Amino acid sequence: MTKTRTEADSLGNIEVPAEAYWGAQTQRSIDNFPFPRQERMPIRLIHALATVKQAAARVNGIHGLEAEISAAIEKASKAVRSGEYDNQFPLTIWQTGSGTQTNMNVNEVIAGIANESIYGTRGGKYPVHPNDHVNRGQSSNDSFPTAMHVASALALEVELFPALEQLHDALAEKAQAWKSIVKIGRTHLQDATPLTLGQEFSGYTAQLVANRDRIEAVLPRLHQLAQGGTAVGTGLNAPENFGEHIAREISKITGLKFTSAPNKFAELAAHDTMVELSGALSTLAVSLTKIANDIRLLGSGPRSGLGELSLPANEPGSSIMPGKVNPTQCEMLTMVAAQMIGNHQAVTVGGLQGHLELNVFKPLIGANVLRSIEIASIGMSSFATRCVDGLEPNEQRIGHLVDNSLMLITALAPIIGYDKSSKIAKHAHDKGITLKAAALELGLVDEATYNKYVRPEAMTGPRT
Amino acid sequence: MTKTRTEADSLGNIEVPAEAYWGAQTQRSIDNFPFPRQERMPIRLIHALATVKQAAARVNGIHGLEAEISAAIEKASKAVRSGEYDNQFPLTIWQTGSGTQTNMNVNEVIAGIANESIYGTRGGKYPVHPNDHVNRGQSSNDSFPTAMHVASALALEVELFPALEQLHDALAEKAQAWKSIVKIGRTHLQDATPLTLGQEFSGYTAQLVANRDRIEAVLPRLHQLAQGGTAVGTGLNAPENFGEHIAREISKITGLKFTSAPNKFAELAAHDTMVELSGALSTLAVSLTKIANDIRLLGSGPRSGLGELSLPANEPGSSIMPGKVNPTQCEMLTMVAAQMIGNHQAVTVGGLQGHLELNVFKPLIGANVLRSIEIASIGMSSFATRCVDGLEPNEQRIGHLVDNSLMLITALAPIIGYDKSSKIAKHAHDKGITLKAAALELGLVDEATYNKYVRPEAMTGPRT
Amino acid sequence: MTKTRTEADSLGNIEVPAEAYWGAQTQRSIDNFPFPRQERMPIRLIHALATVKQAAARVNGIHGLEAEISAAIEKASKAVRSGEYDNQFPLTIWQTGSGTQTNMNVNEVIAGIANESIYGTRGGKYPVHPNDHVNRGQSSNDSFPTAMHVASALALEVELFPALEQLHDALAEKAQAWKSIVKIGRTHLQDATPLTLGQEFSGYTAQLVANRDRIEAVLPRLHQLAQGGTAVGTGLNAPENFGEHIAREISKITGLKFTSAPNKFAELAAHDTMVELSGALSTLAVSLTKIANDIRLLGSGPRSGLGELSLPANEPGSSIMPGKVNPTQCEMLTMVAAQMIGNHQAVTVGGLQGHLELNVFKPLIGANVLRSIEIASIGMSSFATRCVDGLEPNEQRIGHLVDNSLMLITALAPIIGYDKSSKIAKHAHDKGITLKAAALELGLVDEATYNKYVRPEAMTGPRT
Amino acid sequence: MTKTRTEADSLGNIEVPAEAYWGAQTQRSIDNFPFPRQERMPIRLIHALATVKQAAARVNGIHGLEAEISAAIEKASKAVRSGEYDNQFPLTIWQTGSGTQTNMNVNEVIAGIANESIYGTRGGKYPVHPNDHVNRGQSSNDSFPTAMHVASALALEVELFPALEQLHDALAEKAQAWKSIVKIGRTHLQDATPLTLGQEFSGYTAQLVANRDRIEAVLPRLHQLAQGGTAVGTGLNAPENFGEHIAREISKITGLKFTSAPNKFAELAAHDTMVELSGALSTLAVSLTKIANDIRLLGSGPRSGLGELSLPANEPGSSIMPGKVNPTQCEMLTMVAAQMIGNHQAVTVGGLQGHLELNVFKPLIGANVLRSIEIASIGMSSFATRCVDGLEPNEQRIGHLVDNSLMLITALAPIIGYDKSSKIAKHAHDKGITLKAAALELGLVDEATYNKYVRPEAMTGPRT
Repeated sequence: MTKTRTEADSLGNIEVPAEAYWGAQTQRSIDNFPFPRQERMPIRLIHALATVKQAAARVNGIHGLEAEISAAIEKASKAVRSGEYDNQFPLTIWQTGSGTQTNMNVNEVIAGIANESIYGTRGGKYPVHPNDHVNRGQSSNDSFPTAMHVASALALEVELFPALEQLHDALAEKAQAWKSIVKIGRTHLQDATPLTLGQEFSGYTAQLVANRDRIEAVLPRLHQLAQGGTAVGTGLNAPENFGEHIAREISKITGLKFTSAPNKFAELAAHDTMVELSGALSTLAVSLTKIANDIRLLGSGPRSGLGELSLPANEPGSSIMPGKVNPTQCEMLTMVAAQMIGNHQAVTVGGLQGHLELNVFKPLIGANVLRSIEIASIGMSSFATRCVDGLEPNEQRIGHLVDNSLMLITALAPIIGYDKSSKIAKHAHDKGITLKAAALELGLVDEATYNKYVRPEAMTGPRT
Repeated sequence: MTKTRTEADSLGNIEVPAEAYWGAQTQRSIDNFPFPRQERMPIRLIHALATVKQAAARVNGIHGLEAEISAAIEKASKAVRSGEYDNQFPLTIWQTGSGTQTNMNVNEVIAGIANESIYGTRGGKYPVHPNDHVNRGQSSNDSFPTAMHVASALALEVELFPALEQLHDALAEKAQAWKSIVKIGRTHLQDATPLTLGQEFSGYTAQLVANRDRIEAVLPRLHQLAQGGTAVGTGLNAPENFGEHIAREISKITGLKFTSAPNKFAELAAHDTMVELSGALSTLAVSLTKIANDIRLLGSGPRSGLGELSLPANEPGSSIMPGKVNPTQCEMLTMVAAQMIGNHQAVTVGGLQGHLELNVFKPLIGANVLRSIEIASIGMSSFATRCVDGLEPNEQRIGHLVDNSLMLITALAPIIGYDKSSKIAKHAHDKGITLKAAALELGLVDEATYNKYVRPEAMTGPRT
Repeated sequence: MTKTRTEADSLGNIEVPAEAYWGAQTQRSIDNFPFPRQERMPIRLIHALATVKQAAARVNGIHGLEAEISAAIEKASKAVRSGEYDNQFPLTIWQTGSGTQTNMNVNEVIAGIANESIYGTRGGKYPVHPNDHVNRGQSSNDSFPTAMHVASALALEVELFPALEQLHDALAEKAQAWKSIVKIGRTHLQDATPLTLGQEFSGYTAQLVANRDRIEAVLPRLHQLAQGGTAVGTGLNAPENFGEHIAREISKITGLKFTSAPNKFAELAAHDTMVELSGALSTLAVSLTKIANDIRLLGSGPRSGLGELSLPANEPGSSIMPGKVNPTQCEMLTMVAAQMIGNHQAVTVGGLQGHLELNVFKPLIGANVLRSIEIASIGMSSFATRCVDGLEPNEQRIGHLVDNSLMLITALAPIIGYDKSSKIAKHAHDKGITLKAAALELGLVDEATYNKYVRPEAMTGPRT
Repeated sequence: MTKTRTEADSLGNIEVPAEAYWGAQTQRSIDNFPFPRQERMPIRLIHALATVKQAAARVNGIHGLEAEISAAIEKASKAVRSGEYDNQFPLTIWQTGSGTQTNMNVNEVIAGIANESIYGTRGGKYPVHPNDHVNRGQSSNDSFPTAMHVASALALEVELFPALEQLHDALAEKAQAWKSIVKIGRTHLQDATPLTLGQEFSGYTAQLVANRDRIEAVLPRLHQLAQGGTAVGTGLNAPENFGEHIAREISKITGLKFTSAPNKFAELAAHDTMVELSGALSTLAVSLTKIANDIRLLGSGPRSGLGELSLPANEPGSSIMPGKVNPTQCEMLTMVAAQMIGNHQAVTVGGLQGHLELNVFKPLIGANVLRSIEIASIGMSSFATRCVDGLEPNEQRIGHLVDNSLMLITALAPIIGYDKSSKIAKHAHDKGITLKAAALELGLVDEATYNKYVRPEAMTGPRT
């Protein structure tokens, strides 16, 4: 038997575990939405809501909230934000679509902490009231979207961008180190004209640079906050310019540059910017799939694949095949990417179903975007450290393949024309001989010309 | 400082927490894939793998595995399956794409438990070896897909079908209870000809019946197991008919009717049946969205919406608007549905990227399907209990709307023709008067005829 | 200046091209939805609607429709169904979400043809009226979903199943022909234990068999027709058992076994079965991607890829690289598959947004399902004929790879244990020598034992 | 019997219709990919390829291409670009994944036109050769992605942005006109605090402004062209700075500011920017769904819905229900949006499957993005003209609903507290009386205070 205390809301009394800081509305949500623990609301969203509460306490302090109460709320909010009370937020994603219950959970816990700090009694509504004080000037309808933007912006800053940089740098180091290793190109998975291994990897770095750019292109809209719209976007019951003041305080607290959204109706009723961000993350997922897939292909073998790269052996690969080392980091990253694409789908479906003044898929949208950011970040960082950093080119194999290739014939096309070049390649292919032998056999080019033009290293750039 | 012991695999020694049952390969995966706890592999998959191990111990016992070892593996597997050791499976979804590491985690923990039970020393490889004994005749490549099918089939049986029935029955009860409440129909969200509230709800029950049928249509393929294919589908290193024997034992253990898949190459290299199941779950999500959305619409109000249904008030609705009660269970269910659709997307993307003898998106696929089943099940059950069961029709409002409707005119179309009927409706609409008044004013029908044909209750079925 | 005639509907008069058979409502839709020609409603849907009209004319004949009119409608419907009037259906997918305008287009054209056949005057409403006669007992709301089911079922029967069989048979022929060609297996794209090329292809045939099964599993629901529900599902203004009679007549006309759906409310308000079918098609797309992708991988080269298969050269591959032949049929088929997956997404989004008595994404849903069936059918058939039929194994290359593989070591694992086997493979890999040399060098197995167990051809099945 | 002439490529001779301008490779593709006409490659892509050819002719002229040939190519390219030869491009989307066949189609037709203009003989390779001259310095691998970017950028400029502006302006006009119409707000589809109808519509305009911003944020990357990379990204066989020169010429021809992509490897091997653009279009689709859905909801009725807006009647709504007018433009737009979301899915699946130096889902990606732009543009423009422009507020209904609402109680919360306010609302709801009556009955506030604070028009903004 757990000890309980009694809390109340407009529906009446309800028993709450004695050690909990939360109140009646949190408890009702626990009972009403019996999902398991792993479905809990991302903690970043909780911390971001606490940031909103801290900022609101400051602004409300200017607008008449008693100094003691404002200070107590700010202190409690800061503690929540720091992670000290993470176990006080048991609610899951699957609840009210406005996130009201999580907003109330945060209101109640902050009030509960503040009340304990003032009177020594945990929980309750006195002297700090969850609605009248902690939630003052706010509604779930504007606080929750604000928290989604703040949490996402911070997660990008603290998790995603550093991981993206790390992966970029790891790939760029290889691109630089391998800039003189000439290898066969492959288009349609068929042998093509040569390039350097460094050029190949430079493509990956360019993809990541562009992904950084496209995620950053979302920031001007992501930094716009819904706060100040209150229940339907009009700002009813909030002081004038409440949104602007809150944005300024949140910027101070977080170090990011938030602004107040120019139109609050749009921010409550739709979450287009979250959908946009999700789309940008999905594009990143597409790029990561390409990169990891290429490395998996280049590392295929050891003897019956392309075999151009050796991947680091982080673990025994198979439970039955001894000696086999698998591209496990590639597999992890491509699975993460598939999840991000799926998450984007969920966000899209949630985003399009808003009705009139409120989109009620907020927890779904927030949770999926934050999960994508988190798994992408860990995935990229792990992939950089445990795969890319340890990649080694198999230069002997690479050299053998390029020297043996039929596609070097392309270098002759501008000299002897497309049709003759085509004949030489076909002849070499049919007879299983080298291009040079084929060219001379057919008498379509002399040896000196052949040697002059067919040099793989000279084929890795435009005519000069 | 946690105490550790030393375990080893082909890569060398590694320290493992002393209290852990797992061995070297599990530990390496913990280190190599640093994802947070909430990303853990669904426990149903672990239990299903333990089921495979238990079945394999029995079958291997017939094929030369020492009785003592077979018995120890079976006992340990059963304990794992019962949930007793759930904390011994720390690995996340984001690992090797074959699920090898989770398969090894299960192998190691079962060996670890068995070894402890025999010699009192936790973990290790003696006398029970994770590979040579627990994994005998198996590969991750066939065990993991087997576990995906077993776990999904059980989750359907134990979670989803009962919840689907519960929701069906709740809706069917309303359909029956409300079979005489005549109401306005709405097509294009525009007023249409009448039907009964019971008929409207009968549509929802029919949708759920069809969803049950379509999920059951997947079972013949879901009950086919990959076991016996070993590494590439050939069954190398497994005894003949190993797959058939395992399927029989798993059927005994679980009470479901599993069979051995006719072609193991397809089962390892692709997971089409999991994609198919995911598609069926996504179709269910589409139905649930429709149903929850309709109830939300019919319950909109209290005074400015359609207002035909009253939803039970499970919690105070809003942190700022007193007295408001929101359709929170509808919102939960439609968010769950959106997630299921997103999960289907992830499964599809994973499903299409297999290469040659192995699809390496197995953990992604398994985790998403199992998550969809779980949240759908809890969601439907909660929605049935906390929303549908408590629905009340607002008969006064319903009656007012149907009596006042212009669309009753349709009853006259077969009598006076389409064009005249159209004129009457237009007239009533323009003047804001009743249909009858309009009809008589225009002289297009006499009162007796009008009264005879325009009876809403008579319009809820075909001509008789 | 085109010559016109005047037609009318409840909104008034409108000019229609003199040579057109259609009437006022079709003309309004042309004007109101100015999308280009290639966005036109799939002709299969038009033909299916004509089938509905033909069946309705017969059934209405029993229920009082004049024999002459019934006969004229039936004759005109048959002509439309035969494709004779395909240019009379200019409306696009993007119109009313109930498909009303296309239903009216069909009603008007059939009336127009019938009227011309009776009085020699094209178009108009006399003696055959588009609404009162052609559409009698029907609503767009039940006719259009009926047509979606009929058109899809026919397209499966006439297009998809034959193409699926053709591709299956082409692959099965290869599986049979190549059943003795032992090759290296690849898991994680890494070398694995051997299998035969025939076994590999047998996996593809098994995938297609399962896909046929899963599409056929949809048929019991697809064969259920909405007809008889009229506007909201009640069947108002239709004779009793109209749905059953229509289903019987459509079955006679088409040769497929249609039935009347048990609940019409569900059939108008949602299109779950179309979503389900779309999901089954998306699963087929996943399988096709796997198959085409594998063939592309196995055919990669000619000299720097896996090179195990030669693909037929249907066209010069590249505009710059002479002599190169690309897997163009694989590329076509994987693009088609990607489109099918996208189409499924559109259908899903459309399917979940129904409101109350009507889903108004009908044309979107119908058009996407029919497009998927059509491009999948042509794609599979072309791929079978122009790619699979012409595949040739490169036996020399295949033999070289398997003989040289490290993974044959797996055959020794049950004999000398996992750990020793692992050491041999590692040693061979490090030194670049054969497995046998490594095994003997390390003294972990004698030559006789090695030769006895390490035989690729003996490794393509379970222990016997 | 059609008359033919003989054309040839490296596979040999082939008969081509005598009147066709195309050559052997186009003809082979027609035969090899037998898809129907409506699957044809979007004409915008053809025109963009012609733009590339025109630009290349100019640049090649500087690099040694004979002036006469350069001029003939430029003239022919311009004619193709103008639409004069649209019937010469019969190839469909479903072909080589590099778009090689469409590139060759353009090369052949331009050569064919040029040759005819010089010697009077249609088609052929002399004096203008499709590969050696028209395709000079290019590969399909860089030309086709260049054309995708050019075609998309132009389609945005010429089609999408104007349509987006038109819709924005139509909504903004309403927002302005209706800025004083106070109405009930709705959150969770439940009655909420009031706002003005103008405020509601201002949210839609804000969504569209943000969508314009997010699509424009893609332009810096969309304006980067792959040209100059030739076959694998190295630029082999192209003159130095060919890409830069081409970008400059294309900018001159189109009036848009194109640049040469900094890394060509990334541009050939992946189409992340097309995926990104597709994501932005999908976000637009999400917004359009919200807007059209709201208008459909607000216009629901005429007597049993929300009934706040009247939609223009563009057509008779139903084939059975006279007098009914449906939100057909809303339905069209939401179906278009669903298709855009599906198209995004197809593009994503195509985008993630590139291999090494080439993504071979180019035609799929290009076709889907261009289709989304086209149907979105026509859809938005039609919706603006035929729906938004004609919307009328039903002021009487709007006034009645707001006056009767319980949610005005929110205005009292800051005065008498949350709990008391809640009690009043509940009392009014239970008794079916007005808020004022309830407030006075319960004695929780005096009449003067009530009248002072509960004024809907004063509740549409923050406290001042």
